[in-house]
Amino acid sequence: MKTPKLLPAVIACMLAISAGAAMAAPQNEPIQPIKAAKPKDPALVELGKKLYFDPRLSKSGFISCNSCHNLSMGGTDNLKTSIGHNWQEGPINSPTVLNSSMNVAQFWDGRAADLKAQAGGPIANPGEMASSHVVAVEVLQSIPGYVADFRKVFGTDKVDIDKVTRAIAAFEETLVTPNSRFDRWLAGDKKALSANELAGYKLFKESGCVACHNGPAVGGNSFQKMGVVEPYKTDNPAEGRYAVTGKDADRFNFKVPTLRNVEMTYPYFHDGSAKTLKEAVDTMGRLQLGKSFSADENDKIVAFLKTLTGDQPNFRMPLLPPSVDATPRPQPFGKQTRAD
Amino acid sequence: MKTPKLLPAVIACMLAISAGAAMAAPQNEPIQPIKAAKPKDPALVELGKKLYFDPRLSKSGFISCNSCHNLSMGGTDNLKTSIGHNWQEGPINSPTVLNSSMNVAQFWDGRAADLKAQAGGPIANPGEMASSHVVAVEVLQSIPGYVADFRKVFGTDKVDIDKVTRAIAAFEETLVTPNSRFDRWLAGDKKALSANELAGYKLFKESGCVACHNGPAVGGNSFQKMGVVEPYKTDNPAEGRYAVTGKDADRFNFKVPTLRNVEMTYPYFHDGSAKTLKEAVDTMGRLQLGKSFSADENDKIVAFLKTLTGDQPNFRMPLLPPSVDATPRPQPFGKQTRAD
Repeated sequence: MKTPKLLPAVIACMLAISAGAAMAAPQNEPIQPIKAAKPKDPALVELGKKLYFDPRLSKSGFISCNSCHNLSMGGTDNLKTSIGHNWQEGPINSPTVLNSSMNVAQFWDGRAADLKAQAGGPIANPGEMASSHVVAVEVLQSIPGYVADFRKVFGTDKVDIDKVTRAIAAFEETLVTPNSRFDRWLAGDKKALSANELAGYKLFKESGCVACHNGPAVGGNSFQKMGVVEPYKTDNPAEGRYAVTGKDADRFNFKVPTLRNVEMTYPYFHDGSAKTLKEAVDTMGRLQLGKSFSADENDKIVAFLKTLTGDQPNFRMPLLPPSVDATPRPQPFGKQTRAD
Repeated sequence: MKTPKLLPAVIACMLAISAGAAMAAPQNEPIQPIKAAKPKDPALVELGKKLYFDPRLSKSGFISCNSCHNLSMGGTDNLKTSIGHNWQEGPINSPTVLNSSMNVAQFWDGRAADLKAQAGGPIANPGEMASSHVVAVEVLQSIPGYVADFRKVFGTDKVDIDKVTRAIAAFEETLVTPNSRFDRWLAGDKKALSANELAGYKLFKESGCVACHNGPAVGGNSFQKMGVVEPYKTDNPAEGRYAVTGKDADRFNFKVPTLRNVEMTYPYFHDGSAKTLKEAVDTMGRLQLGKSFSADENDKIVAFLKTLTGDQPNFRMPLLPPSVDATPRPQPFGKQTRAD
């Protein structure tokens, strides 16, 4: 019952890998290096950076994009599930924003097609930032410093949620992490990896991990069943892709997470239940591949995974234009008001 | 009953101003320019910056020093009172960290002698970061990246709360904001202020505001009664300096807040009840000075106050060393554990 489910996926992925490798991948490896970002519109990116760090997009004035996707901490909050408005316990682990522009879609269930569509979600989610698009736009529209930025970038003083999310997405597109040791090895620097790390990569490939964790982001490019060989046991009620498509076949299918910077993005899995890489590798081996990695094999794979940490975002902390008298004030402790 | 209470303070301050002015102040003004920070130990400052931004100093792993003293927003959270662990409503307005090294003491009631003493407070305060010094040190000690920093800075691998708070204080000492338009005017640039702003400054001086708001930080250097001429009405139970000294005379004495960057540090007063500068100036005039400023006078004073915004902190966002398997994990939603 179990192995046959896996095989078609593995075969399909292997074919995809061969096709991809034949085209461009250095050394014909299933993982490709990450390229540095080349922002087309630096002013748009700068505006997006401010918005990303601005807690005034939340009802409380306390939660920004960076609260749960903290760029000082691998683009995550390193919590099992996140803290939302009024200290609500989030339903799912916050995925890293780093390299998220390479994802096939956004959120664990892929319900947002791209970063722009994603960015509007948490602002208006009552369990996250708990504001609304209307209020968020009102706040920004009232702040002369922002209006000047919008004018500069978009040629108009009119703020709207489309422009807000375009700017945030443009900033997020810059959050790529090139130049990991693994990428340097891919580029031909044979000394970039130790023998142990290289042995880990060999195991990673030969065991079938690359079937899903491949491409420049080492994941992020497909939805897969969580618990292929053995079912995954969790208290977390998330049903994955099924919530989007309504198809039974998509039940418990989640977007494969990127393994880039995985040393920094603990805890792991959509429910955040794996506290360590060792635990995550062990669980993945058993549940997805029917393999019990020995302690030595696990160590080697973990050592390889730690070579995927690339250059982290490196920028000056943005300064946010101050509110003015007319700016609607945050309501951290008030009652629920109008929704979007 | 009312004016006599004020007069001795005003006279004492005027004498102090004369004495100070005679010594060093440019143009004999009661406000002196802020000097740029000259950090003695850049590595200590860099370590302190990481710690300032690290939410792992809190029980939840969600709240850092920067959460309530946000360096993108004037060193404050721009909330009436702050949000603490488990969304607890803070008892008092978070004062700005900018230029706080110039304060006579820290906290509104001055209960901490200096920034180092202050830095340990919120970490272990159950209503704020809700961790303990023991746990915070355990967390840092477990993280190889931090241990390397402590070794580099202090010559030892041993982390303790004394070193942690020394580093945070050293970073905070760099958070000064020189080069405001007002400072440029003080330095002789007559075009730095408009006639309206200058008229506001003249009113600020002649009305007696400078009695308490003087020196480089335009405040921060004394404790004064809130509500001298008229009592201040508030639901906030804070009793100010009395909580520290137990002396009846200190009841409702609070540290005079700095007016540097005051355009960015709204809302105002220890209870955060004044939403706008206009409201704050009006209330201060009536309650502290027995003056009702006309709308025009209020506008002018506000215009002057806005010239006190200096160069904001300008640095690269710190990257925090990741936790390792042995690092104690945050407990955002767990029950209360041991206290410090």
